[in-house]
Amino acid sequence: MFKETLSQLVAKKNSLLCIGLDSEIDRLPPSLLSTEDPLYIFNQKIIEATRDIAVAYKFNIAFYESLGIPGWELLKKTLDLIDRNVLVIADAKRGDIGNSSRKYAETFFNVFNFHAVTVSPYMGYDSVLPFLEYHDKCIFVLCLTSNEGALDFQYLNVGEEPLFLKVARKVNEWNLQYGNCGLVVGATHPEDILSVREAAPTLPFLIPGIGFQGGNLYYSVRYGTDAQQEMALIHSSRTIIYASSGEDFAERAREEAIRLRDEINRIRQEGKREY
Amino acid sequence: MFKETLSQLVAKKNSLLCIGLDSEIDRLPPSLLSTEDPLYIFNQKIIEATRDIAVAYKFNIAFYESLGIPGWELLKKTLDLIDRNVLVIADAKRGDIGNSSRKYAETFFNVFNFHAVTVSPYMGYDSVLPFLEYHDKCIFVLCLTSNEGALDFQYLNVGEEPLFLKVARKVNEWNLQYGNCGLVVGATHPEDILSVREAAPTLPFLIPGIGFQGGNLYYSVRYGTDAQQEMALIHSSRTIIYASSGEDFAERAREEAIRLRDEINRIRQEGKREY
Repeated sequence: MFKETLSQLVAKKNSLLCIGLDSEIDRLPPSLLSTEDPLYIFNQKIIEATRDIAVAYKFNIAFYESLGIPGWELLKKTLDLIDRNVLVIADAKRGDIGNSSRKYAETFFNVFNFHAVTVSPYMGYDSVLPFLEYHDKCIFVLCLTSNEGALDFQYLNVGEEPLFLKVARKVNEWNLQYGNCGLVVGATHPEDILSVREAAPTLPFLIPGIGFQGGNLYYSVRYGTDAQQEMALIHSSRTIIYASSGEDFAERAREEAIRLRDEINRIRQEGKREY
Repeated sequence: MFKETLSQLVAKKNSLLCIGLDSEIDRLPPSLLSTEDPLYIFNQKIIEATRDIAVAYKFNIAFYESLGIPGWELLKKTLDLIDRNVLVIADAKRGDIGNSSRKYAETFFNVFNFHAVTVSPYMGYDSVLPFLEYHDKCIFVLCLTSNEGALDFQYLNVGEEPLFLKVARKVNEWNLQYGNCGLVVGATHPEDILSVREAAPTLPFLIPGIGFQGGNLYYSVRYGTDAQQEMALIHSSRTIIYASSGEDFAERAREEAIRLRDEINRIRQEGKREY
């Protein structure tokens, strides 16, 4: 089960860090461009330098899909580099009617063997169900996203509370039956992370938006974790993987990953939350 | 521009029919299974048999993606078979933060050269914007989907109206600036198609859900079209492409496509709607 594995890895590595392998050719260190497969070499070096620090790697599928067929090959090869001590998450934000969602679930869970996937809630229960049926995986449903556009619909009031809280409560219900749900909660809405955590006390949260997007690390860790100060994956991509554009990119990525892991742990060490 | 092309093709072919090429190996006529590339041959035969009847082909990307790399190759090869007189729609239901949505837009518009794509509204404006910036394409935003799960969130009341109408109004606003928006409106909610059409009088609607899903063709055509009785793509997949599992599958697909086109046109011929 995903939650048990996550819990074990968090304890073993003393880390909540999730690193995004959102690699782009335009941002690679120039020294790699003359190699035969620059993006693969880049991913390999980043993974070698951070695999003992990260609890998870997240792949934003857009970055691979947009390369066409070579992008899917790159994804497959990169996944093959990652050992059992790191979880792999497909940030795919999929969701469709049942028979199509079933295909998407096959893609990420069977073809690529990811441990977790992100899905969109808009189409409701039967669009998520084919993912939920993979009991040992984790289904991170978009709840409160880190972008500005979150204001357009997620903050609309439905009765007495915003839509994103309705989503959190609904996913928490689904979790009672399936036990494998999680939520995506952006770090850019620090004041609301607590309300989502209260609506879904035990679910794993995937928390993007610190670093480049300006999210709040303190509240993400303090309120995004569960009562045991686990069950939150704090995600960072660009700040780590592009820490340097020189030949020292892998060493600098490692330093940045360690710095962030330690900063997260200092916040955890402040002790259990008061609520 | 997509709308102009759609309008021309609708007039030229006297058709609102959109055929879904959601081809699955398990459902192919047995006679094809001994060929070298059964899914490709199937798509080819269906396209040859229906290209003068269909205004658009819709590809549910889940069906191709779930085959791994060969699926993307199949998608590319199939698209290469389709001439300029048929629009091609990527039913991808993507949506992510800006720099990721930009990648998805590149995938479907640049790598695969689709005329239109479906996107999810949940993440709001900046998740759709990178698609909108392709002015000659059409961005079909999920509004009211054809599945049961539509009830979970799309029908929640936001103030005095359901979320799906808020989405329709918001997308209609975006369209004022970009002119290239459309809406996905399921045929399974006949009583609500009219309210979406009233909220977005000129937008192209992509209407799935007739046939296998049990949607209502009469209301889809009568209320889904605009004042000129255009701007609706009535989608059918399984009923057409699997009309026969025998060697006559292509002929039967053509017959079914003609039957549906004509049925749609009979409803259009009842004259302009009263509202």
